Amino acid sequence: MSDVFITENFLLENHAAIRLYHEYARDMPILDYHCHLPPRQIAEDHRFANLTEIWLYGDHYKWRAMRANGVPERYVTGDASDFEKFQKWAETVPKTLRNPLYHWTHLELKRPLGISDRLLGPETARGIWDECNAKLAQPDFSCRGILRQMQVVLVCTTDDPADDLEAHRAIAADRDFSIRVLPAFRPDKAMAVESVEGFNAWLDRLGAAAGIDIRDFTSFLDALHRRHDFFHAMGCRLSDHGLETALAEDYTESEIRASFARIRSGSPLAPDAIARFKSAMLYEFALMDHQKGWTQQFHIGALRNTNTRRFRSLGPDTGFDSIADGPLARPLARFLDRLDQQDRLAKTILYNLNPADNEVMATMIGNFQDGQTPGKIQWGSAWWFLDQKDGIQRQLDSLSNQGLLSRFVGMLTDSRSFLSFTRHEYFRRILCNLLGTEIEKGLLPRDFDLIGGMVQDICYRNAVAYFGFEGIGPGPRG
Amino acid sequence: MSDVFITENFLLENHAAIRLYHEYARDMPILDYHCHLPPRQIAEDHRFANLTEIWLYGDHYKWRAMRANGVPERYVTGDASDFEKFQKWAETVPKTLRNPLYHWTHLELKRPLGISDRLLGPETARGIWDECNAKLAQPDFSCRGILRQMQVVLVCTTDDPADDLEAHRAIAADRDFSIRVLPAFRPDKAMAVESVEGFNAWLDRLGAAAGIDIRDFTSFLDALHRRHDFFHAMGCRLSDHGLETALAEDYTESEIRASFARIRSGSPLAPDAIARFKSAMLYEFALMDHQKGWTQQFHIGALRNTNTRRFRSLGPDTGFDSIADGPLARPLARFLDRLDQQDRLAKTILYNLNPADNEVMATMIGNFQDGQTPGKIQWGSAWWFLDQKDGIQRQLDSLSNQGLLSRFVGMLTDSRSFLSFTRHEYFRRILCNLLGTEIEKGLLPRDFDLIGGMVQDICYRNAVAYFGFEGIGPGPRG
Amino acid sequence: MSDVFITENFLLENHAAIRLYHEYARDMPILDYHCHLPPRQIAEDHRFANLTEIWLYGDHYKWRAMRANGVPERYVTGDASDFEKFQKWAETVPKTLRNPLYHWTHLELKRPLGISDRLLGPETARGIWDECNAKLAQPDFSCRGILRQMQVVLVCTTDDPADDLEAHRAIAADRDFSIRVLPAFRPDKAMAVESVEGFNAWLDRLGAAAGIDIRDFTSFLDALHRRHDFFHAMGCRLSDHGLETALAEDYTESEIRASFARIRSGSPLAPDAIARFKSAMLYEFALMDHQKGWTQQFHIGALRNTNTRRFRSLGPDTGFDSIADGPLARPLARFLDRLDQQDRLAKTILYNLNPADNEVMATMIGNFQDGQTPGKIQWGSAWWFLDQKDGIQRQLDSLSNQGLLSRFVGMLTDSRSFLSFTRHEYFRRILCNLLGTEIEKGLLPRDFDLIGGMVQDICYRNAVAYFGFEGIGPGPRG
Repeated sequence: MSDVFITENFLLENHAAIRLYHEYARDMPILDYHCHLPPRQIAEDHRFANLTEIWLYGDHYKWRAMRANGVPERYVTGDASDFEKFQKWAETVPKTLRNPLYHWTHLELKRPLGISDRLLGPETARGIWDECNAKLAQPDFSCRGILRQMQVVLVCTTDDPADDLEAHRAIAADRDFSIRVLPAFRPDKAMAVESVEGFNAWLDRLGAAAGIDIRDFTSFLDALHRRHDFFHAMGCRLSDHGLETALAEDYTESEIRASFARIRSGSPLAPDAIARFKSAMLYEFALMDHQKGWTQQFHIGALRNTNTRRFRSLGPDTGFDSIADGPLARPLARFLDRLDQQDRLAKTILYNLNPADNEVMATMIGNFQDGQTPGKIQWGSAWWFLDQKDGIQRQLDSLSNQGLLSRFVGMLTDSRSFLSFTRHEYFRRILCNLLGTEIEKGLLPRDFDLIGGMVQDICYRNAVAYFGFEGIGPGPRG
Repeated sequence: MSDVFITENFLLENHAAIRLYHEYARDMPILDYHCHLPPRQIAEDHRFANLTEIWLYGDHYKWRAMRANGVPERYVTGDASDFEKFQKWAETVPKTLRNPLYHWTHLELKRPLGISDRLLGPETARGIWDECNAKLAQPDFSCRGILRQMQVVLVCTTDDPADDLEAHRAIAADRDFSIRVLPAFRPDKAMAVESVEGFNAWLDRLGAAAGIDIRDFTSFLDALHRRHDFFHAMGCRLSDHGLETALAEDYTESEIRASFARIRSGSPLAPDAIARFKSAMLYEFALMDHQKGWTQQFHIGALRNTNTRRFRSLGPDTGFDSIADGPLARPLARFLDRLDQQDRLAKTILYNLNPADNEVMATMIGNFQDGQTPGKIQWGSAWWFLDQKDGIQRQLDSLSNQGLLSRFVGMLTDSRSFLSFTRHEYFRRILCNLLGTEIEKGLLPRDFDLIGGMVQDICYRNAVAYFGFEGIGPGPRG
Repeated sequence: MSDVFITENFLLENHAAIRLYHEYARDMPILDYHCHLPPRQIAEDHRFANLTEIWLYGDHYKWRAMRANGVPERYVTGDASDFEKFQKWAETVPKTLRNPLYHWTHLELKRPLGISDRLLGPETARGIWDECNAKLAQPDFSCRGILRQMQVVLVCTTDDPADDLEAHRAIAADRDFSIRVLPAFRPDKAMAVESVEGFNAWLDRLGAAAGIDIRDFTSFLDALHRRHDFFHAMGCRLSDHGLETALAEDYTESEIRASFARIRSGSPLAPDAIARFKSAMLYEFALMDHQKGWTQQFHIGALRNTNTRRFRSLGPDTGFDSIADGPLARPLARFLDRLDQQDRLAKTILYNLNPADNEVMATMIGNFQDGQTPGKIQWGSAWWFLDQKDGIQRQLDSLSNQGLLSRFVGMLTDSRSFLSFTRHEYFRRILCNLLGTEIEKGLLPRDFDLIGGMVQDICYRNAVAYFGFEGIGPGPRG
């Protein structure tokens, strides 16, 4: 059966691109330093009951597309059967032409699911459902099986400081499983002081996890430090923060202490006090990360939970977020400068969601390179809504124009799905096509050792060197 | 005589694009759901005295280009003769290379004016003037003649709520003319409270049209409701609002009543009261539109009348407007969310003027799709300064990446000129070229039924289904 | 020896592009109306000791790349030897693939340095160092020699109003040197009222240069007027202003007088008073420029000196600046409108650093064209971080879409280096490639007289006509 859509040279438009991809990029292992995979499923080596479970449970990208296509909520997040939901998704797929979902869907059907002789649509839905479900029942398609098939050497999940990391401990203790699964420290809830009730409930969980009675700002920071230590002991080497905008307000320590006391006693903070509290927390976390040699990540510019009706019925991360706007260059520079002045600026990756901020980001990182760690301050790969062909190309182009593409730590999935590892393939094909096209046009030298070496650095080796995970080598097979 | 510039395959760069355009797009009828054509001229089946009347009277795009080319105002809006003005325009045309005016001019010369063997310039000006004026004297080039030639099935004009719609009534009553000409409700003057005098004068006209004595906010709303009812009875199914930025301020009803009383008594409002008043009005209009099943349009981001000297001598819409900037994601989300929470969010089309806001728009619409009407919230076609090849492509690309291109209601002219219908052709060629190029590159499946069907949906059928005008069918000939 | 990278048709992707470049663009002289060359070096006809002196001293673009590559500061701005610095730069070059530095470096090596058979890298560093240093010792590679080799007919340097312009006087007096070297008036220090001490020290220098005791705002303006007169007498025809954002605050003259008195007496101004003071100064300078028929330039949107630690050790302009963000359309329109209302708006060139502002700029200039001077208000060539292939193309595209490309005054180096004149070549190749590609695609008429004429206008003739420097003719050889 021949490939009807995703061919061997998908996205590769010329000979140089084809050579770069197949000779240099394709076989590099995957180091997925930021994702949202559930570690529990890896620990239990979960198998998926059907395509809907692995593809549609929790994938708010697809939910959004289905709603825009006029699919009622019953078939999106409601009580329809798994097959009914899949059928509605299959009806939606041909309506997603030119959306990244169309490419991703067929990439994932081809790898690892092995279906490339048909397009997904209402007519092919039943057959694909049956075939894929049969595959998913096999050991190669358990969570670990998929990770192995996709040549993954390491993944970093995204974890709450109050999490006990039991799943990570179980995975690490399993001698039969060699892929590294490490936690990442995501303390967004430590800054979510908009909700007095939610914040205090979380403090109780944090205190329990840390074994500390959180009464005041000092004990709050103590608890966070203990969890940071614990995450470090569990192999964590990255933190992550989600922010609507950059924050670097002036504040005094006594003011922050008073704010903490106020909210701990059940009273809300005024908006400016909230901004100062968050600014203080970002600074504190940055000190922890620098002290331990971690890399700090900032995901900036999402306007979340815009649809109140749906938020009330479905909760967060259900497909009602979009791209925020507004200036961020000054506060971002202030935040980084404060740390740099104290020589406490950790390795940092900045991600933006609004592509209008691309050049602000691409130039900002150049202000705080320290002449020691190559590419110490990174502009992260195209994120979320920008994680598509145009978005990836624009990030690569701006990064190239304003900084050093050669030092880029490259792609990550940022995904909740075990099928998303083909996004590394997607990224690599786009990267090789950009570079190959420029070789063919004479914009880059026709030197495959030089350009191919850069490809391999970006696909894998830069990340190995940058993050410094123990036991992960730079070799072509990890 | 052969075509020297606009050939049969203008803008179509490969075989797939050529096939998509000529087999799928070219013959689709035109449903122009937003334009600024004067209904009176259609009612009277006006004929144009010469090229200057049909091309240069009122076309501030051309005026702007002439001024930038150093043409004195006398030849732009002043008392020079029609031929002198045309000659200055003809001298300017070769200076507009790469501006959309260059393409539009030669597209319009070719269709419907039948001249494609020459470029317009100072040497060819006289000949083109004579030939075209002879054509314009023929019945096929009256307002109705041109609409028929261009395969238009329906146009929506843009009308003030105080307008008596007599021209629309006359057109509808004429059994010899089958093209639908419907009003659209554009109540910008109901929000133009910056000018106490202008606003009160307009209230008097509105009251007269509605047969209501407008003394307070209640009678103001009553009058608007009556006009909304009247427009509906006349076939109107769309409203439209021009805004410099998105507005969704908090307000109380009593405060709005007081603001109205204040301005009605001749006193100005403070800037923050103006913003709240406008926010309230936008909400009230949105309720009316939802109640009647209309589509509401918002044109956001024009900085108007920047040149005070020219505004004083020439008035608005004379070529001194430009692109505004500033954040709008939050207020826009708030406005839509308030209506959605009350289940009163009408079908909505959002247009932005600053392309830096493209991705904010493209993702915003995804937050309020309701899983009933496919593509209920639309991001409108590239508007005004963006209505050119790059702007159209960028809108199509962002819409594709963030949403469902397949559900797009497509192009509109937004024009004051009867010669502008070739902009649908321009759009269709660009659309087919984008899609054809991706077929050739393997980025889309080589399935002409699938892609060609999407082309026809975007060119015509989606708009038919979306707006639901009575008596307009989805067939290939309307 | 054949060219390994920069070939004759570098950047030219088709026949039309090749023809436009070689037949129309290549041999046009260079009129560099904005650069930062040190006039003293031209006056003395300085010769460079080695490649590091001419290439790395003062080039903060390269410094930034070296730091991002992990090169310690000792080899960037520190006490390492010139050869050690060059070697670190040579090691960095292969890491700059896709950055404009990679193209610029090899363009400059080819012209004027004559090396195109090798790429610069650690292995070729020694040979290139030796060969180039031998060349730099020859008369053709003195400052004047390079200017002659590069077909430069005129350069405008960038000068402080307090500067005595002795170097310019010496150059003008030298009958053996026919290239015009004119000052440009850059009074940023007259607005730098953030620093009380720095501002007062500068006032003292200004007063000494003007022969005026600066006691109050009146004498301050008197001194500036005298310097403006003096610059004019020295051939200056352009001013220039560097601004983080556009400024057009309301103010009263008495308030500005009081602010001046306050700071002159050693007290700082509040932030809002600073913004008003700067607004007032911009207006005053604009009047001077209009009165003398100069062109005023505004460089808007740099966030400077973001890295406090490095600013303290290295000072400004050392590679720690980046792109600012925030709205600017309204104040920019207000500033221009105020002058236009008074019929005192000088020829103006606006430059933006954030490409998200491209369309704001491209449309803003259209609001104040006066129908006398073609292209009176210009949107300047892609600046600083945007001065690369993508940035240049985007500026040309937006300018074309929103205005008249044909009236563009074109490229400038904005450089501190005598080797940067190949940026005109780079720009011309990009321009010809854009236009040639559109000819080949049928988007522009295949009329080489028409398009080639536009190329020559943009490369040189428009600038000659626009600036009106005495003694500079429009002919193909200046």
